[in-house]
Amino acid sequence: MTDRLERQIAFLAEIDRLKSVIRRSYLIDGSRRENSAEHSWHLATAVIVLGEQADPNVDLLRAVKMALVHDIVEIDAGDTFLYDEAAAAQKEELEQKAAERLFSLLPEDEAEALKSLWKEFEAGETPTARFVRGLDRLLPLLHNYYTQGRTWREHNIRLPQVLKMNARIEEASPELWRFAQALIQDAAAKGYLAI
Amino acid sequence: MTDRLERQIAFLAEIDRLKSVIRRSYLIDGSRRENSAEHSWHLATAVIVLGEQADPNVDLLRAVKMALVHDIVEIDAGDTFLYDEAAAAQKEELEQKAAERLFSLLPEDEAEALKSLWKEFEAGETPTARFVRGLDRLLPLLHNYYTQGRTWREHNIRLPQVLKMNARIEEASPELWRFAQALIQDAAAKGYLAI
Repeated sequence: MTDRLERQIAFLAEIDRLKSVIRRSYLIDGSRRENSAEHSWHLATAVIVLGEQADPNVDLLRAVKMALVHDIVEIDAGDTFLYDEAAAAQKEELEQKAAERLFSLLPEDEAEALKSLWKEFEAGETPTARFVRGLDRLLPLLHNYYTQGRTWREHNIRLPQVLKMNARIEEASPELWRFAQALIQDAAAKGYLAI
Repeated sequence: MTDRLERQIAFLAEIDRLKSVIRRSYLIDGSRRENSAEHSWHLATAVIVLGEQADPNVDLLRAVKMALVHDIVEIDAGDTFLYDEAAAAQKEELEQKAAERLFSLLPEDEAEALKSLWKEFEAGETPTARFVRGLDRLLPLLHNYYTQGRTWREHNIRLPQVLKMNARIEEASPELWRFAQALIQDAAAKGYLAI
C-alpha cells in the first residue's frame, strides 16, 4: 500500500467518530437526537436538492464537499449549541487544533485542500460558504418545527433569538429566508416557540 | 412558498428517515450498528478523499451526488445484507417502488435527475457508478476489519464469500482492490474471518 493510500484510509477510519458526536436537534420522528455525521449527509443532500436557490457564483461541487467536512472538527472539539453564545466564543481555538490534527492525517495536498474548505466555511465570506452556512441553519429549523419545537423548549429559546441566529439564511437565498421566517412565525403561533 | 420549494422541503423532511435504517455494520469503535444516512456521508466523503484513485472518466460531482442518494430507497425497502443472496433477489421490485415514491416528492425535473442517478448506481455500468459501488464495498470491509470481523462472525461469513462479494472493488480501482485483498487476507490470518 502506498503512503498516500495508507493516510487516506487512516483518515476515513478516524472520521467514523463523527457518527458519535451528538447534536441538540432531534430526528424529525423525535426518536433520538441527531449525530453530526448523519446531519452532514442531510446538509450535503440539501445542497444538491436546493442548489437552484443558490447564487450563480456558488460552486456546487465545492459546496457539497464543504457540507461533508464542515463538522469534522467536532470529533475533537464537540458540537456547540447554536444558542450558547459563551461556548461559541471559546470553541475557535479548539476547532483550529482539531482541524490541524484531523485533516493532517491525509496526504499533505489533500489536508491543505480540506482545511482551506473548512476555513472558507467558517469565514462565511464566499457565495459558496454563505450558501452552505444558510442551509446549515435551515435544517435544524425544520427539525425543531417538526418536533413541535422540542430543542427550543428544552433550552428556553425564544422567538427573537431564533430570528437573530437564523438571519444568515438570507445570505444563502432570499427565498429560503422568506420561507424560514414564515416557518418560525408559524412555530411561534402554534406555541412551539415562546415569544 | 412556491410549489417547487414546498416539494424540496417535503423531500428533505422525508429522507430524515434514512437515519433510522440500521445496517449490519458496526461503527469502528464497536459502540453500535451503523445507520444508512451516516454511511452515506462516509461514502460521499470517501468519494472525495479517494477521488484520485478514480478512472479519469469518473464525474466527481455526479459520484458524490450518487453516494448521497444511493441508499434513500432503503427508507421503504430496508437495508439488505450484502451476503444474503436470497433477499437480494427480492429487493429489486421493492426498491423500484421506493424510488418512485420517494424521488417523486421532488419537483419533476429533480425527481427524474435523482432517479436516473440511482438507476445508474444500481446498473453499475458507467465509470462513475463503478467507482461509487466499489467504495460502497470498501467501507464495510474497513468496519469489519477494525471490529475484528464482528459482522462476519455474527453471520458466519467466510473468506471465499468476502473475496467474491468484494471483487467489484477492482472495477473502482485496481490499487484499492489490491489494498482490499491484503486487508481481507490479513483479517483471515488474524482469525477475524473464517477460512
